Amino acid sequence: MALTKAAINPRILRAKYAVRGPLALKAEEIKKDLQKDPNSHNFKSVTFLNIGNPQQLDQKPLTFVRQVVSLVQYPELLKSPSPLFPKDTLNRARTLLQHIGSVGAYSHSKGIPYIREKVAEFISKRDGFPADPEHIFLSAGASSAVSKIMSMVAANSNVGVLVPVPQYPLYSASSALTGSNFIGYYLDEKAGWATNVEAIKKSLADARKNGVDPKLLVVISPGNPTGSVLRDEEIRNILRLAKEENLTVVADEVYQTNIFKSHASDFVSFKRVWSELCAEDSSFQNVGLVSLHSTSKGFFGECGQRGGYMEVVGMDPEVLDELYKMASIELCPTVTGQVITETMVNPPKAGDESYEVYAKERDAILSTLRERAMQLYETFNKMEGVECQKPQGAMYLFPRITVPAKAVEQAAKENLAPDAFYAMELLKNTGICVVPGSGFGQEENTLHFRTTFLAPGGEDLSNAFVNFHKEFMRKYS
Amino acid sequence: MALTKAAINPRILRAKYAVRGPLALKAEEIKKDLQKDPNSHNFKSVTFLNIGNPQQLDQKPLTFVRQVVSLVQYPELLKSPSPLFPKDTLNRARTLLQHIGSVGAYSHSKGIPYIREKVAEFISKRDGFPADPEHIFLSAGASSAVSKIMSMVAANSNVGVLVPVPQYPLYSASSALTGSNFIGYYLDEKAGWATNVEAIKKSLADARKNGVDPKLLVVISPGNPTGSVLRDEEIRNILRLAKEENLTVVADEVYQTNIFKSHASDFVSFKRVWSELCAEDSSFQNVGLVSLHSTSKGFFGECGQRGGYMEVVGMDPEVLDELYKMASIELCPTVTGQVITETMVNPPKAGDESYEVYAKERDAILSTLRERAMQLYETFNKMEGVECQKPQGAMYLFPRITVPAKAVEQAAKENLAPDAFYAMELLKNTGICVVPGSGFGQEENTLHFRTTFLAPGGEDLSNAFVNFHKEFMRKYS
Repeated sequence: MALTKAAINPRILRAKYAVRGPLALKAEEIKKDLQKDPNSHNFKSVTFLNIGNPQQLDQKPLTFVRQVVSLVQYPELLKSPSPLFPKDTLNRARTLLQHIGSVGAYSHSKGIPYIREKVAEFISKRDGFPADPEHIFLSAGASSAVSKIMSMVAANSNVGVLVPVPQYPLYSASSALTGSNFIGYYLDEKAGWATNVEAIKKSLADARKNGVDPKLLVVISPGNPTGSVLRDEEIRNILRLAKEENLTVVADEVYQTNIFKSHASDFVSFKRVWSELCAEDSSFQNVGLVSLHSTSKGFFGECGQRGGYMEVVGMDPEVLDELYKMASIELCPTVTGQVITETMVNPPKAGDESYEVYAKERDAILSTLRERAMQLYETFNKMEGVECQKPQGAMYLFPRITVPAKAVEQAAKENLAPDAFYAMELLKNTGICVVPGSGFGQEENTLHFRTTFLAPGGEDLSNAFVNFHKEFMRKYS
Repeated sequence: MALTKAAINPRILRAKYAVRGPLALKAEEIKKDLQKDPNSHNFKSVTFLNIGNPQQLDQKPLTFVRQVVSLVQYPELLKSPSPLFPKDTLNRARTLLQHIGSVGAYSHSKGIPYIREKVAEFISKRDGFPADPEHIFLSAGASSAVSKIMSMVAANSNVGVLVPVPQYPLYSASSALTGSNFIGYYLDEKAGWATNVEAIKKSLADARKNGVDPKLLVVISPGNPTGSVLRDEEIRNILRLAKEENLTVVADEVYQTNIFKSHASDFVSFKRVWSELCAEDSSFQNVGLVSLHSTSKGFFGECGQRGGYMEVVGMDPEVLDELYKMASIELCPTVTGQVITETMVNPPKAGDESYEVYAKERDAILSTLRERAMQLYETFNKMEGVECQKPQGAMYLFPRITVPAKAVEQAAKENLAPDAFYAMELLKNTGICVVPGSGFGQEENTLHFRTTFLAPGGEDLSNAFVNFHKEFMRKYS
């Protein structure tokens, strides 16, 4: 065998991605069992709460978005349009086609110039500060943007990247793949998973003591898996730190429309605060900032379409050229994903024929998410030894669990971390697939799991969690 | 500035991608000039012959394909279908949706199981040997598959990858990005760019002498940029060599339906020959083979949709697991691209309502390509000091040019390679954008350029080449 596991790139072996890790593989297996024999388990189906995949659960796509995409895919429909299509949808598709030509052609590697202009307009309007289309790179979701930036900074084996813990494991995985040193900084669970600049400074100092050279500071707001939303002042402090310490900031803001306004701060973008700081002190213009957005999250939930963008500011123009070269080696992001990005940054406006349906669908999705989030949150906090921070946004809860000593022993026997054991038992007994906290990172001697709150199921889902937990605690007490 | 060019990953600096390199950037600039002032140059428009991008030129998408995609994007169209949609198209969309759910959901990271089954059926039928859906990974075009395999083998700084010269620069670029050593082996221009096993052996021996450890052997058939089609016996010899030398083979077969049957061999897949060899000698089952296909090329030309697949055989199952993990970090290939892959491997059949239109469109595209290829080929061979091998397939010609000494001097003054100078002059004088041979690699003291033969223009295009060349030769003689 020419290529054995022992012979391949060790960076790949080191990379871990728990969201689709052993728990998810076991869940796929059980799903197959159930297809063959619906009575093979104590439940009828697997509930995939391991991944924020709204349309795999019961979220419907937005009518406006899908209409535009179907029209640009098959422009013949524009000639004798079905009464299904409102006028503004038809016009939108026509305008897009004028700028795109065919969605089957490779586009500009940074994305279609017209769509990048629309993204820049969206950012300007959102922040009250200008954005330059030349600083915008359309991407396949946010993941492909992250891997480019991670690769860009990984100049040698001393380079480090600062990442919150708990984190979305894309960051640890791409750090491993590109050969940089992962430097975790702890979020403050008791303060609703707040980002503490002192914690970042501590990790920074420890890393330097170990000869690591931190280059990148990753921040996720609203947080994944925590849902925590950063406030203006916190962002200022982070950018000030970045300036002092010569760090480039990656602001993962893919959940920017998933915020529970009743009790969370409004979304504030890093780009806005960066622009404010630049206005106060022009030397901030040299603080590198990469902001990520995606069509996969928010109320769009168009994960499978692979749309998104990154905005890159404070960067040496020569580095931008290198980013462009990297994009060109991949040819271009999916053009349909680019189209969906355009509909995200330029949705129907009040008065447009599509607006009413669009607004209704959007509001229904957002209020359902909120309901489900609050219901699960309350459920978890009723469970013995479980503590869950109040969700502020994003799509996940990250409850802290305590398991009895006997369960820890049993986990060790099965060669599993205690939280992985808990999650595996949950899966085997209820069909619910969550991800153990160890996949995201957690403070020593704490245990968690991540679950999306996207799933329908209401009472039944809550009861499944409660009953399993009761039985688990009874069994191992 | 936190991130300067000098501080970034040197592998990125080393990567080159000429197809979208300086010539293409200059062409984009000229295009912008012409948009501002149509009289700014001696021509009215830029002709992008630097990239195989059929639908950017005048190729129309296949009706069947786009109908299916528009239906799966907006399933409401299935409820009261427009008379535009034939019955089999509607049924196809329904079947796909049954297996996919929503195209907006993340799919299985290897691709939708049903579509992988269809790919396996296609391969079995094409080759007469079985294919296993578990060995198939759907991908975003072929590029993302190449970068995974290149990354997989790059275990240390001694690893080498054998690549034909001239090559498609994705291979040199991803070798540079992943830090392996690029080992070129020369194709035999006089023999119609044939692949010569002796040339591979020579490069292999030279590499080993230099302490390089070759792991991967890339073969492109039909060739890019050469169009050369490998025959059964040549493939056998390559696979035998791979076995002897413990190399994993990457067979880039994305142009498998672009073959001029009148004078080229039929397409033979590496997988078929591998299967035949395995039947004769079971030890071939340990020869790793990665075969690539794409929806971007062929008569589909759906570049912007980013569809494709790789089939991986002869590989340690643990290595397959690692490939799966890498795919899962990227979440999933674009689902629309997956759908298009399904329509490619499972097109309408005789008797289906869509069949006639499908076959007519397919045949028209293929015969147009052939016509254009032959016309350009004949044009080039009429030009002084230009020699072009007869095209057998793919989408490009790679003529060899000789330029006068004075042109070489002028090129040096402008800090350009002589072929880059020739291509730059061509662009500035005619608006035609080709890629200099140096971007693909060529034997020392030879000069070439690559052009697609996809463009319309007929006589006018031929005349533009001929007149420019005459004037160039006159000026520098």
